[in-house]
Amino acid sequence: MTRAPRVAVIGAGSWGTTVASLAAAHAPTTLWARRAEVADDVTASHTNSRYLGDLTLDPSLHATADLEEAVSGADVLVMAVPSHGFRATLVELADQVRPWIPVVSLSKGLEPESRLRMTEVVDQVLPGHPAGVLTGPNLAKEILAGRGAAAVVAMPDEQVALPLQEILTRDLFKVYRSTDVIGAEIAGALKNVFAIAAGIASGMDSGDNTRALLICRAIAEMTRLGVAMGGSPLTFAGLAGIGDLLATCISPLSRNRTVGEQLAAGRSIEEITAAMSMVAEGVKACGSVVALADDHDVEMPIAGEIDAVVNRGRTPEEAYQNLLQRVPSTEFRGVALG
Amino acid sequence: MTRAPRVAVIGAGSWGTTVASLAAAHAPTTLWARRAEVADDVTASHTNSRYLGDLTLDPSLHATADLEEAVSGADVLVMAVPSHGFRATLVELADQVRPWIPVVSLSKGLEPESRLRMTEVVDQVLPGHPAGVLTGPNLAKEILAGRGAAAVVAMPDEQVALPLQEILTRDLFKVYRSTDVIGAEIAGALKNVFAIAAGIASGMDSGDNTRALLICRAIAEMTRLGVAMGGSPLTFAGLAGIGDLLATCISPLSRNRTVGEQLAAGRSIEEITAAMSMVAEGVKACGSVVALADDHDVEMPIAGEIDAVVNRGRTPEEAYQNLLQRVPSTEFRGVALG
Repeated sequence: MTRAPRVAVIGAGSWGTTVASLAAAHAPTTLWARRAEVADDVTASHTNSRYLGDLTLDPSLHATADLEEAVSGADVLVMAVPSHGFRATLVELADQVRPWIPVVSLSKGLEPESRLRMTEVVDQVLPGHPAGVLTGPNLAKEILAGRGAAAVVAMPDEQVALPLQEILTRDLFKVYRSTDVIGAEIAGALKNVFAIAAGIASGMDSGDNTRALLICRAIAEMTRLGVAMGGSPLTFAGLAGIGDLLATCISPLSRNRTVGEQLAAGRSIEEITAAMSMVAEGVKACGSVVALADDHDVEMPIAGEIDAVVNRGRTPEEAYQNLLQRVPSTEFRGVALG
Repeated sequence: MTRAPRVAVIGAGSWGTTVASLAAAHAPTTLWARRAEVADDVTASHTNSRYLGDLTLDPSLHATADLEEAVSGADVLVMAVPSHGFRATLVELADQVRPWIPVVSLSKGLEPESRLRMTEVVDQVLPGHPAGVLTGPNLAKEILAGRGAAAVVAMPDEQVALPLQEILTRDLFKVYRSTDVIGAEIAGALKNVFAIAAGIASGMDSGDNTRALLICRAIAEMTRLGVAMGGSPLTFAGLAGIGDLLATCISPLSRNRTVGEQLAAGRSIEEITAAMSMVAEGVKACGSVVALADDHDVEMPIAGEIDAVVNRGRTPEEAYQNLLQRVPSTEFRGVALG
């Protein structure tokens, strides 16, 4: 490559801001924030106090509330907006995007109603642009605070992934390459549903065995659906699958896990979402995941129970009892290797 | 099967006693304890207060300190002795074992010096007996206390696994079948080494990302070696691999994890093992694992660092820095599917 690609990160939430700060160390990077005061905070004070407290960002990171300014010169577009606003933002910026540049999604959800993955939305709005994801066990505050972490950048073409890997890698933040976009993306969407399950288990004060068992069976369900949709089973055994699920399940910072804990405490989903500033992605995704499982004729008992608890008033106790009724056979039934 | 098989469980530690108590509900079961007072405790009081406090065992479970009494009528032999005493106990009972009966190992270690798996030791001492393992995320006290859990019984022949599955399954203890004995057994031996790594990370107060990352990369290392030795990659993504590793890493009850935490606190391995009543399996295994990795030409950087810390005086900080120097590429390099 003749010069460092210019990076635009669209969305200045905690994770978008963190990725922009990582990229800024290696490439000219512009962060787009919908709110001008957030953009000013980043550019002037090198902080995003709304989402990241007093953590310091890379001083070279520039932010703007002007979408055209952020997008028009960019050689890489990083989309850091939630799944429900993803398409609208993409449509808003589409006519300013340079041709052929890669689009990297940070969103871990499915489009409501259509149940499309974010890279499928990119294919519809910006056809011809290589679309992929950056995913993994990435708690924004820990990474900015300099604790060791890693992620996977999955792009259809490894030659496109390679420079992105170089831009994002830091001493304490390792980025691995992958070409399994479908697997990495499905894993990200599914893990939020299972994080709710882990929260319920934690809220019901289940044992360490039980939590490990739940995570294992969740991985088996994720793998079954992901493979049926065209992903690689190894993706689910890696950072994008087990890694991300695990971080969500062990960290008290996860919104989806918190939803599960509150459900176990007997609160209704309406009460819980009313009290949160953002809807947890897993709450929105569980209906879509169950529908996708039906479409692909894949058994997902845990996801089914979570959907029933979130959307159809089933109690966590009933869900737990239903899962216990199941008769075990072999693990990973229906997953063929190779 | 015409009658329920009689089960002999050899070794009355916490896990052997628990498995014997589970089996006793479905099949006549005898537990062999080296100490007569432990046998008396089990038979008379339905407790094993030495290892399991006041938790109650199945009242039909009979225990004895007489090896011949335990073994001679058994249709299934369950070996619940640590890896370093496994062969000697097997030799001691060999001439009383009925022909052809299956032998199930509960031990999660490798034979010191020979680096053999326990089923390989069974093949040498009792040739012709089908040998397998019961493994998974199984914290004995939680299972006896009635908390949900699951395990995998891996036998070379699924027809042998099926009745064992039926004997061991309970409402709150699910047993899955597998024919991947090598994978299940290697996973059990390796996870203890990585539990030490998780303990070090926890003792160094690393973040939730970092711990998730460590577990992910540990799974990648386990999978690489296990596949090179003939196991299936899915075994490592299941209960025997990630499940068991996870339970060990999140539970404060794990001896191996405790070793890691103490190492991070600056204690020497000699001090740590001197203060423990039993040597943690991971401490014994790490040298063997590194040697096996060399034999199979498999990269295992985490296991290598743990071996250096345990056996060659490297500090946990040096080990952590060495791991951070590594340049990421793709995940699961060298693991072919199918």
